[in-house]
Formats: sequence, C-alpha cells, structure tokens
Amino acid sequence: MANGQTQNQILALLKEKKNYVSGEDLSRLLKMSRAGLWKHMQELRADGYKIEAVPHEGYRLFAVPDKLLSFEVGYHLETQLVGKKIIHFESVSSTMDEAFQLGLQGAQEGTVVCAETQSKGRGRLGRDWVSPKGKGIYFSILLRPESAPSEVARITLLCAVALCEALQKETGLDPKIKWPNDILLNHKKLAGILTEMNADTDRIKFLVVGIGLNVNASRSHLPPEATSLKIETRQAHSRIKLLQAILRSLDFWYADFKKNGFEPAMMKWKEYSSTLGQRVRLCHLKETVEGQAIDLSADGGLLIRCDDGRTIKNISGDVQHLLS
Amino acid sequence: MANGQTQNQILALLKEKKNYVSGEDLSRLLKMSRAGLWKHMQELRADGYKIEAVPHEGYRLFAVPDKLLSFEVGYHLETQLVGKKIIHFESVSSTMDEAFQLGLQGAQEGTVVCAETQSKGRGRLGRDWVSPKGKGIYFSILLRPESAPSEVARITLLCAVALCEALQKETGLDPKIKWPNDILLNHKKLAGILTEMNADTDRIKFLVVGIGLNVNASRSHLPPEATSLKIETRQAHSRIKLLQAILRSLDFWYADFKKNGFEPAMMKWKEYSSTLGQRVRLCHLKETVEGQAIDLSADGGLLIRCDDGRTIKNISGDVQHLLS
Repeated sequence: MANGQTQNQILALLKEKKNYVSGEDLSRLLKMSRAGLWKHMQELRADGYKIEAVPHEGYRLFAVPDKLLSFEVGYHLETQLVGKKIIHFESVSSTMDEAFQLGLQGAQEGTVVCAETQSKGRGRLGRDWVSPKGKGIYFSILLRPESAPSEVARITLLCAVALCEALQKETGLDPKIKWPNDILLNHKKLAGILTEMNADTDRIKFLVVGIGLNVNASRSHLPPEATSLKIETRQAHSRIKLLQAILRSLDFWYADFKKNGFEPAMMKWKEYSSTLGQRVRLCHLKETVEGQAIDLSADGGLLIRCDDGRTIKNISGDVQHLLS
Repeated sequence: MANGQTQNQILALLKEKKNYVSGEDLSRLLKMSRAGLWKHMQELRADGYKIEAVPHEGYRLFAVPDKLLSFEVGYHLETQLVGKKIIHFESVSSTMDEAFQLGLQGAQEGTVVCAETQSKGRGRLGRDWVSPKGKGIYFSILLRPESAPSEVARITLLCAVALCEALQKETGLDPKIKWPNDILLNHKKLAGILTEMNADTDRIKFLVVGIGLNVNASRSHLPPEATSLKIETRQAHSRIKLLQAILRSLDFWYADFKKNGFEPAMMKWKEYSSTLGQRVRLCHLKETVEGQAIDLSADGGLLIRCDDGRTIKNISGDVQHLLS
C-alpha cells in the first residue's frame, strides 16, 4: 500500500508536468534515492505505463495502459462517495464475490471492485456474464443504504438510470432500459446490472451492485443477443473515461436518493424505459401471460394489463417485448 | 475429518455396548493398531468424554461432556435435512458469520453451526446477544429455500413456531411468541431468532437462521429482561436433547413449508402468539403509534388497528405489549 501510494504520487507528478521531470526533482519531492525511484518506475512499467527515461532530461510518461487501474479511474474523479476506494484486478472469479467479501469485512460504502476479466462473471437469475478480457467494464460497488430489503429493486433501477445517463452524456447514444435493468442499444443488450444483498428481515446490511458493460468487444466475443459500444458506433471507446462517467453518475443519483428518495430516479427510469407502453410476454414460474406494460409500481415492479383484463404486478423474472 | 469419523465410530460402538468393549474387538472392527486406538481415546478424552480403560476388560464410556458436540447432537437425530451436517465450535465470534461463510462456499442446506459461546453474538436490529459459555444453545442453520426475498419474514416466523413446539414437547412449558420472533416464557425473553440472507433482487440465494436459547443460565448471566429454562423451572436441562428436539421440529416445519406453503405454520404462529389481540405500542423510525394488534399479514407483518382509526401494517422494528 505504501508502494502503491508512492507510485500514485509519481504518476500524479508526471501527469501534471506533461513533460520530462528530472530524476533529481522526483527524488527530492518523494524523499527517496534515485535507485528507489528507478525501482518504482520499473513497477509502473510492469503495470503497462510507458515511461521514457532520457539522460539529462529525466522521466516522461507518454502512454497509459488500457486498464481500469485504480489510479487512472480515481484521477480527478471528484465524487463524494462512489469510487473513493477502487480495487483493480487483472482477473477475478467475479467482482460480485470480491465486493461481497469486502462488505462482510466492513469495507467503506462506495468501494468499487473492477477487473479486466472475470472467470465466472454472472448475471441475473443465475445466468453467466461473458467478460472478454480488457474489452468491457466489469465492476461492483458496495453500498450501505438505510433501507428495507423490499427496497432493493428500486436501488437497482436507480443504478440503471445512472448508467443510462452516463452513457448518453459520454457517447451521445440513446440507451434504453428493458425492465427491470437490462440496458439496450438498438434493441440489443449492451449492459446488465445485478444486485446482491446481505440483509436481515428488517434492513439491508449492505448491497453490492454489479455492472457489466460491453465496450470494445467485437461480435465474436459476445453472445448473439448482445452488442457493444464498438459494434454499434464502429469505434473504440476509452473504458477509463466511461467508467469515470458511470461512477460520477452513480454518485449523483445515490446522493439524490438519500436526499430526495426514489421518486426522481423512478421518473427518470420511466423516460429511459423501452418496456412501458410495450406489449410484453411474461413467463413466471409456470404461468405465461401477455399484455400491455403500463407502469412501474412503487416497489419497482412492472404493472401489466393482461389481455384477460386483469392487472398484475410482476416483481421478478423476465419480460419479452412483443411486436404490438 | 478421517479422525473425526473414526472417533464417531468408536463412540457409536461404546454407546451401543453400554459396557466394556475389549481393545482387541475395537482394533479389529476399526482395522487399527492398539496404539492407534489409544491415541483416539486420548483425543476423545480431551473433548471431555469420560472413558474408562480396565485391563482384561477393555474400554467403557461412562460420561459424555455437556457440550453440543457434533456426534452427540447427530446421534439418532433422524432428520431429513436439518442437521445432516453439524459443525461445533468451543467459541466463535458469531455462529451467523460462520454459517454465512459456509453458505457462500456452497455448503449443503440444513448445515448447522453451533458453539458453546459467542464473543460477538448478535440479535435483531444490531443488538447484542449474550452467550454465557455452556449455558445456552447458540446455533445457526443454513437454508436454501426457493423463495423471493420478500418471503424471508415468513421463514423466520416458521422457525419461531418450530422452536416453540420443540420447547413445549420437550419441557411441557408454555412458550409464547412476541411478534415477530421473540420467544417468551412468563413474559420474559427466553430465546431470540435472527435471519440473515444472501439474495439478489429476484430470489434468496441462501439464508441463515440463528437461534439463541437460554437454557441453564442463572439470573446473573443474563440481561434483566431475559430468562432461562433453569430460572423458570428451577432445574437444569439437557442442552443436547433440547437441540435435537429443536432440529427435528425445524426439519418437520421446513419440510411442511416446502410441501404445503406457509399457511399451516402461520396458523400455528397465531396460536403461539402473545401479541395478537394485545394493545401494543409501535415505535418505527420517527413515529409512535398505539392500538390493537389484530392479525398477521400474508407477508409476516403485524396489522395494527390504531387508536386514530387507521389500520397499519408493520413489517420491521419492535412492538411493546401494553396493559389493555
């Protein structure tokens, strides 16, 4: 950790200067020997930072690795809570599991766990989430809302809103939310959100929200129903900038919820929704019903006016959008 | 584990014989040397088993330790699911945490974690649970119901029913349930139940139900509002027999729920309830209301007809019983 902090200081100094910084200046500022400095530079290079060393000039940072490294994501992030601590893994079983363990150990609210790839990434309803290495944003965030377990669905919807807003601002695209929390672009799945909680009967102790976003994956990396920003826009996108935008948006909406409750996020969710107003088919347990998705209920469920005249509220499971 | 299994075999042989078993017979049956046998006997003695060794006669078990050892609790337990695996600790931070970690690791449904004492035993709403060493039954059970998170309260109520029924059958006493899941004897707190779950928005992945029951604790061991079986009956009770009775009752009611749903347990809960029909005061968040507790709602909440005429449903928090 001391090492990590020194390296963050070196990176900050090199980034601010944007030109050569003499080894002498760095040694003095960091209170360390030239040999010690050299060792840190080697470690940063091992992380993928391209650092030039020119005699009589000094060190210059000329390229940053295409990785969601803690320093890069946290650099000028300027959030209140989300991402104040960021933990990066090259590879992990699932960022959900790592964040959940951190939650059990009492880690601070807003802690973010991200990874270049996941060997057992998962989605809703026990499904897999395909996580091609370095091609997407796979992260989980630890939250400790003072909420009842029954409110968890609304927190997930709020995160879907935050994700859509960040994507829209950062890319100019027009993402939509398919109930409850699939993010679609041109009717294909761009991102998914999964929430897991540790709760007793009365209250949530903590929850972990996981987001998987397909950024630079090509068609061959992904399942047929999925898409990526690169596929849809025919250009690569900076994962670091995107993740920063998402964390800022999550920070904003989570603070808004704490201050104003769920209402503002739910209004926004309805704007982003591609489900409301649609004809839908719902398969839940052994029943299949069709009807019109008419509204979101107060607890985050989907209200469906069925063809047989009943209005039902659906809390879990999937809906299919049908042609009307 | 192999050791544990051999020791369980030795205990089973000694218990069935109820008299001396020759070292020669034991060696032959267990396919081990006399020296190996001796080593196992020493380990059993270290666990607190009193085993006599008489030349030319053999070994005889003449006392079992007053501990909730896995072998003792599991001996002729004959349940379908609950307690098929029992893990015993001398001391543990909280059986909840141990069972929760086992749940995350995929341990089988019905696994029981018990301890002689807990250094950080906890109750509902972040309260402490006092666990005097060897004086109570402190255990957690891992369940994997195919249920939605909103159903968790009813599973807790079901466990309260199972606990009351076991206590009634085993001791002839008349325990009552104070909503939601405090077990009272003569208006004092005898036992508490705490449920924690790992869930996503749609379904419970697993839950851990913890039960703390005051058995042989004296007044000085316990907080003023609590009581124990020993205090109320003026005699000590076998913790092993009690725990076995509770596990059998949990096994029965959990199987009943899987087959018949919550209805039978909820009916039974109402019979055991000391809250329904009572005047109650409810403090929830910033509001305090008084009224008559009239029924249990379908999701396990308490319906209160307030003095101002409203009927409200209370899902979390506490109620106080008032004199009517």
